[in-house]
Amino acid sequence: MTDPILLTPGPLTTRIETRRAMLRDWGSRDPAFIALTAELRARLLAVAQGGATHACVPLQGSGTFIVEATLATLLRPGDKLLVLANGAYGERIAAITRRMGRAVEVLRWPEDRPVEPGRVAAALAADPGLTHVALVHCETTTGLLNPLAEVAAVVAAAGRRLLLDAMSSFGAIGIDLRSLPVTAVMASSNKCLEGVPGIGFALIERTVLAAAEGVSPSVSLDLHAQWRGLEKDGQWRFTPPVQVVAALVEALRLLEAEGGPPARLARYAENCRTLLAGMRRLGFSLYLEDALQAPIIATFRMPEARPLRFAEFYDALAARGFLIYPGKLTQAETFRIGCIGAIGRRDMERLLAAVEAVLGEMATA
Amino acid sequence: MTDPILLTPGPLTTRIETRRAMLRDWGSRDPAFIALTAELRARLLAVAQGGATHACVPLQGSGTFIVEATLATLLRPGDKLLVLANGAYGERIAAITRRMGRAVEVLRWPEDRPVEPGRVAAALAADPGLTHVALVHCETTTGLLNPLAEVAAVVAAAGRRLLLDAMSSFGAIGIDLRSLPVTAVMASSNKCLEGVPGIGFALIERTVLAAAEGVSPSVSLDLHAQWRGLEKDGQWRFTPPVQVVAALVEALRLLEAEGGPPARLARYAENCRTLLAGMRRLGFSLYLEDALQAPIIATFRMPEARPLRFAEFYDALAARGFLIYPGKLTQAETFRIGCIGAIGRRDMERLLAAVEAVLGEMATA
Ligand SMILES: Cc1ncc(COP(=O)(O)O)c(C=O)c1O
Ligand SMILES: Cc1ncc(COP(=O)(O)O)c(C=O)c1O
Repeated sequence: MTDPILLTPGPLTTRIETRRAMLRDWGSRDPAFIALTAELRARLLAVAQGGATHACVPLQGSGTFIVEATLATLLRPGDKLLVLANGAYGERIAAITRRMGRAVEVLRWPEDRPVEPGRVAAALAADPGLTHVALVHCETTTGLLNPLAEVAAVVAAAGRRLLLDAMSSFGAIGIDLRSLPVTAVMASSNKCLEGVPGIGFALIERTVLAAAEGVSPSVSLDLHAQWRGLEKDGQWRFTPPVQVVAALVEALRLLEAEGGPPARLARYAENCRTLLAGMRRLGFSLYLEDALQAPIIATFRMPEARPLRFAEFYDALAARGFLIYPGKLTQAETFRIGCIGAIGRRDMERLLAAVEAVLGEMATA
Repeated sequence: MTDPILLTPGPLTTRIETRRAMLRDWGSRDPAFIALTAELRARLLAVAQGGATHACVPLQGSGTFIVEATLATLLRPGDKLLVLANGAYGERIAAITRRMGRAVEVLRWPEDRPVEPGRVAAALAADPGLTHVALVHCETTTGLLNPLAEVAAVVAAAGRRLLLDAMSSFGAIGIDLRSLPVTAVMASSNKCLEGVPGIGFALIERTVLAAAEGVSPSVSLDLHAQWRGLEKDGQWRFTPPVQVVAALVEALRLLEAEGGPPARLARYAENCRTLLAGMRRLGFSLYLEDALQAPIIATFRMPEARPLRFAEFYDALAARGFLIYPGKLTQAETFRIGCIGAIGRRDMERLLAAVEAVLGEMATA
């Protein structure tokens, strides 16, 4: 059987070159791996033009680990975080902060509405105790793109620090740290960068990071200590997942060869347009208004006329080599299809043909 | 250039079958990956005969992450941990616990002396506030094997709970949870199991784990929540490093095919005997008394007559395809050579020939 095509928000379909980069063993304290880590950090910074202001701190674990590590490293006991939430990942940031024992306030929007900069400005004006703001760039819960530039401007104008969960946008949707006032950008290896899962990373303003010694209540998740270690001798403090790092470096080289984030975004946008048009033709409607939809992952409602059981739909598509993704909404009966990964318009067209065939089968069953 | 042989405590030399298991993409919520995770957990439990009493909870990240996660999940605010320390990994457990804000006491021995059960019994008798005891099975700092059975008996007799860092012993040195009273065993993918780095796991008494809801101050490192998620639908809470998991399952199948931990221990013991005899012949002395040495990693003193600079020695051996490991001692000028990984006596003999050649070169230089 050939490998399935993953139409998920990651782990997703990677290029075989990326997976082949894992065929080798690396000594984690050897100069060859130290050089690989340096290349990794430089390339990740370059993706967001952060070289002059930010430092890249990679961390073992999944995306949630790098989010928690960033909060643990930057939020001090007296600080208070304002979380802007319109989906599960915003809520997760709030839950992590609460569990950590730091003060947190949540400003909420419905899952199909973007964060409104005006309400953020008002909240910051109303509570001078708020020191940091957390925003999810692309809310993977629905696929909604939040207005980053506008929110960043409002937060900067209010003199607070913005922490950006760019997990599902980094590498495709442009983030330019030369002009955008963001203290920390968090992302992981296995979404738009098209690496395999196993590490996350944060790009953090160097002055802020340098001042964060001893703040983190966790040793494993202390990004200040991780950074100091990397700056001292180029080595990770604790055993790095060497093959995952090698795969991500290869994936970053492939990103550059493709033309960087703009070229990647163009490919994903074409995937998304193809998907949306085809799914509508087949009777599915998009959960979000088109204008709010990022070309990352799309949430579809089950057809009103003929609702399908997700598990059956999933299995039938899986049997044809396509893995789709369940919905994560609190309100509506939906499923998701990712537009990201090492896939192109042809793959979307083949998926649509498979969906059509499955619908036909189910109608006659 | 062929891949170097890693004579390190991990990441180490793995079998090509293990690395090839990473060539595929997996959907992390797909039934195929759910089955892989179930196999992983069952095989890890079986290595320590823990099926009747313990649950296996895998976690993204390095070994330090699983150590911190176990402490975070099991130590409650009123608890107090006694750490038995004769090396860097014992000290790290103490540092993690302190940073987390939990009470901790450290009982210390010199780096070349094993933990003494009698002193542990006395310490537990003297302080009724102590609830848990942490022991490092093989102290990788030196390669010393601590007396697990004796310490476990003393801790059980005193009615306290033992947390065992078995990072560098698990899979080779037998741990039988049917007879050994240990609440939690912690280890990782990339040492004696010969997987690639990227996940750790803990085998925790099910009754203790079930009672640990909401204890962890960290969401990412909450092993109770991780376990509940796995028990509910077989899925990891947060994106798992799918390729690392696939590699570890393959490595566990290879461990079984080799004859399990006893056969692996026999191979490592032969590696170690060959290494020690050869190095002595070449003028190096073993840092530890032979009786304390585990066949995992050996610490050597630089020859008194002709001390070498580690960096030069390392580079010369690396040029010949062998990566050795720096010392980690606070007191003596040493270096380390691992006996673990997918290597055998022949590799040790080739290493010894390389050491001899390097010594000859350095003598004439
Ligand atoms: C926006 C966002 N934040 C955080 C995460 C959490 O990442 P992980 O599943 O790797 O822990 C995700 C994962 O999909 C995400 O999309
Ligand atoms: C006994 C012991 N404990 C903990 C660790 C930490 O593991 P890691 O480096 O994977 O974080 C190690 C690593 O060598 C170890 O040998």
